[in-house]
Amino acid sequence: MHPALTLYSYWRSSAAYRVRIGLNLKGLEYAIVPVHLVRDGGQQHAPAYAALNPQQLVPALRDGPHLLTQSLAILDYLEETRPAPPLLPAEPAARARVRALAQLVACDVHPLNNLRVLQFFDRHWHVPQSERDDWVQHWIHTGFTALEAQLAGTGQSGRFCYGDAPGLADCCLVPQLYNARRFGLPLDGFPTLLRIEAACLALPAFDAARPENQPDAA
Amino acid sequence: MHPALTLYSYWRSSAAYRVRIGLNLKGLEYAIVPVHLVRDGGQQHAPAYAALNPQQLVPALRDGPHLLTQSLAILDYLEETRPAPPLLPAEPAARARVRALAQLVACDVHPLNNLRVLQFFDRHWHVPQSERDDWVQHWIHTGFTALEAQLAGTGQSGRFCYGDAPGLADCCLVPQLYNARRFGLPLDGFPTLLRIEAACLALPAFDAARPENQPDAA
Repeated sequence: MHPALTLYSYWRSSAAYRVRIGLNLKGLEYAIVPVHLVRDGGQQHAPAYAALNPQQLVPALRDGPHLLTQSLAILDYLEETRPAPPLLPAEPAARARVRALAQLVACDVHPLNNLRVLQFFDRHWHVPQSERDDWVQHWIHTGFTALEAQLAGTGQSGRFCYGDAPGLADCCLVPQLYNARRFGLPLDGFPTLLRIEAACLALPAFDAARPENQPDAA
Repeated sequence: MHPALTLYSYWRSSAAYRVRIGLNLKGLEYAIVPVHLVRDGGQQHAPAYAALNPQQLVPALRDGPHLLTQSLAILDYLEETRPAPPLLPAEPAARARVRALAQLVACDVHPLNNLRVLQFFDRHWHVPQSERDDWVQHWIHTGFTALEAQLAGTGQSGRFCYGDAPGLADCCLVPQLYNARRFGLPLDGFPTLLRIEAACLALPAFDAARPENQPDAA
């Protein structure tokens, strides 16, 4: 019997990593279809995948007749269709806080640093690797500085980004820390982020979602 | 008597423009506190505002004791606390579709083109204006091409991005089209987006939210 859910994923995509964590936290079975973002000129640009997702990005999630795109929209969909355990708190202002923390990463950090942006700098502007790395580090550092300020020194953070259960903001934070290390960003200034990351990665749901634990890992 | 809601806004910020549309669609009264993103070295960096929003970005919304950030999180909060009229359809897969359309703009187009990114190119890399404009046009064109494909030729789009009532995706589309014109992107290839924009701007909720109709417009 096949699982009802199919995730189009790439091991090192941090947007796909977010959704893998969410699926695992909810204890859902899913099949992975790897989409290699570099091989064959980028398999996300192949006609069959572009027909599924005109944005030609991963992740996408198939749930029976529905094909869903955008990692945060997918996580909200899972929250609405498989509510337990929840990724969001119950109270509206608390939900807004968690969503804002997630969007700080998913809107204001990650899109600036993903593969297609770095390819633009290389191909159109011939920006050297070292300056591309400076760019990535700049935006992660900017985002993490604000995130550390929002998480430290508030009673709303607990063992995780919000309280003592992992949720939507943690789904975004952990992949972004993975990216930060890939690009050599020093992380000493972010003790709260590192503390939360350690608590997350101690959980099987996060560990199984790690890039290096994917079937398509290099 | 003061309205309960206060929006920290900048007339030309497309993220603030989204929230103004959402507030207007729901018929909510709100006070505007202008935050000038260029004057005084950027009023969003002033200590008083940075204490409210460590990301030093607009918009932020105050609702009584709650200070909310990130435009999409704010719109979800309004949807949860002031549900009528709704910005999202009722069924989970339909909600996910509308959220994905909104995030296509809010995650994958706008963050690449906002003021702080263009300032980085100018100050750190000395990228000429014409190449900065090419960059902006490239990412809007890429996003709009996918959005046009997702909206055209599906029975799910109607007078607006989803069906015949304006909603979350329209709140994101209209400000992005405003930005596209600012940066001189030809729009002939996007007839569905233009048709939906015209339907939106015919509504007082969208018209009142336009940059040029703000108290802080230049």
